[in-house]
Amino acid sequence: MTAVGFAGLGTMGAAMAANVARAGFHVRAWNRTPGRVAALLELGVTEAPDPAALAADAEIVVVCVSDTPDVEQVLFGDRGIAAGARPGTIVVDCSTISPSATRAFAARLAAGGISLVDAPVTGGSEGARKGTLSILVGGAPEDVERVRPVLAAMGTTITHFGPVGSGQVAKAVNQVVIATGYLSVAEGLALAMKAGLDPEQVVTALSGGVAASWILANRSGRMIENDYPLGFKVALHRKDLAIALALAREIGVSLPGSSLVAALEDGLIARGHGEEDQSSIARVIRGLSGMED
Amino acid sequence: MTAVGFAGLGTMGAAMAANVARAGFHVRAWNRTPGRVAALLELGVTEAPDPAALAADAEIVVVCVSDTPDVEQVLFGDRGIAAGARPGTIVVDCSTISPSATRAFAARLAAGGISLVDAPVTGGSEGARKGTLSILVGGAPEDVERVRPVLAAMGTTITHFGPVGSGQVAKAVNQVVIATGYLSVAEGLALAMKAGLDPEQVVTALSGGVAASWILANRSGRMIENDYPLGFKVALHRKDLAIALALAREIGVSLPGSSLVAALEDGLIARGHGEEDQSSIARVIRGLSGMED
Repeated sequence: MTAVGFAGLGTMGAAMAANVARAGFHVRAWNRTPGRVAALLELGVTEAPDPAALAADAEIVVVCVSDTPDVEQVLFGDRGIAAGARPGTIVVDCSTISPSATRAFAARLAAGGISLVDAPVTGGSEGARKGTLSILVGGAPEDVERVRPVLAAMGTTITHFGPVGSGQVAKAVNQVVIATGYLSVAEGLALAMKAGLDPEQVVTALSGGVAASWILANRSGRMIENDYPLGFKVALHRKDLAIALALAREIGVSLPGSSLVAALEDGLIARGHGEEDQSSIARVIRGLSGMED
Repeated sequence: MTAVGFAGLGTMGAAMAANVARAGFHVRAWNRTPGRVAALLELGVTEAPDPAALAADAEIVVVCVSDTPDVEQVLFGDRGIAAGARPGTIVVDCSTISPSATRAFAARLAAGGISLVDAPVTGGSEGARKGTLSILVGGAPEDVERVRPVLAAMGTTITHFGPVGSGQVAKAVNQVVIATGYLSVAEGLALAMKAGLDPEQVVTALSGGVAASWILANRSGRMIENDYPLGFKVALHRKDLAIALALAREIGVSLPGSSLVAALEDGLIARGHGEEDQSSIARVIRGLSGMED
């Protein structure tokens, strides 16, 4: 069975590595902060001392870290993946990072005969645990086909959009759509509640029509309670929105709604709510409207 | 069977009156522009010469016109409903108008023993034809119960939110949620298309996750084609958004996203696109981004 390296065992990465191990792959793992492999030992996962060693033993290396500089460090830093990987190795980057940085990383890896497939995911920690992620893939067709069995162990929907970087573009699009999507529900609920309507009755009545959305169905309750357990952190969405807005600037796309949401999320983070679920954008509208926030 | 008057036979009103007639009510109708009753004659609908005459023969009078001044004219203008209705008559206003004007109209009608139930609808012209509208109702409980059989002939979901005006508040909430909802899909698609992704592949991939919405599922195709058949007119949504933003100001709610959409729709209307479907907000994002708009 293919040997798979896993770099990055955060909430998402640990759950994804576990599913890859359960699918029968030989999984070796590394995490910047030690101790995270312990929970995976019973699945037969072994620990590598650094990314170079991880890559030396693997045909496919999955990277699942936070941001563009983290990916650069894991790939090209001291004892990074590029220092250990043999030619023919494929790196699968499941982090959400810049599409243009992704293309630059791919070019640097190609010099050593290493391929890059970008494969950011949607579906959250629950999707990572259950192996039901939607995986947004960019890369050369032959590389994508080689890594598909590993992707299939992590997610149920695998969409190949085009060359390397295009999975990251699709993820940026997703983060743009949900940015204003959360704001839309937050504004509607603030209006309903301050006007004295029963907000749950409003949600039910609106759910059958044009206003229906996953966010209305699944996150309006948090906004009504004004309590925001995770979910997906505001700070991470803001990071992803920065990637999307940078991409938009690079290619000349103007996103007034997403830019507004970025500014509102900046305020939310400044006030100490960055670790809450993204639905806490409702706090901003409540605060602007003289409601408890 | 209850005698029902119908004032206003536009696209929505004509279809709703037809369903009320099909349900067995004795329907008499009036429209400001003559000739609209002809298509309803085969259903046994008769024509009244003016709203006062319409109301004199009816126990329940349904009003379905465009805006707050139109409702005021039909109710209180020369030969208006108030001039003809007997005490005990209930007016059901299915127009989308100002909640505070609705409460004021209710007080003026009450002086003559006439009740008002506000009952704006969602579900569009297709819902009006099929009798599957969602009806958002405000009014005294006993009035709402008396008119419920007529509402049930027009829609499948009837939600009573509270006292008179609260149906209009719920409709304003709906128009706020969809305002930013359309913008969210328009921004995502502009980014996807200018970045070179296949937008239909993006829609499919995003439809299983947090970005899923009725608008993404049902209106992204129009935005991809850049062609905007109705649907629901930009100009009417802008009118409804003016009502929602006025309500928000009255009660001290700040709606930054909806205010932005109002400004963008103003631009769209100024450029001659007010009669297109609301999804043509995508033209604004395309235009700002140097794409064909």
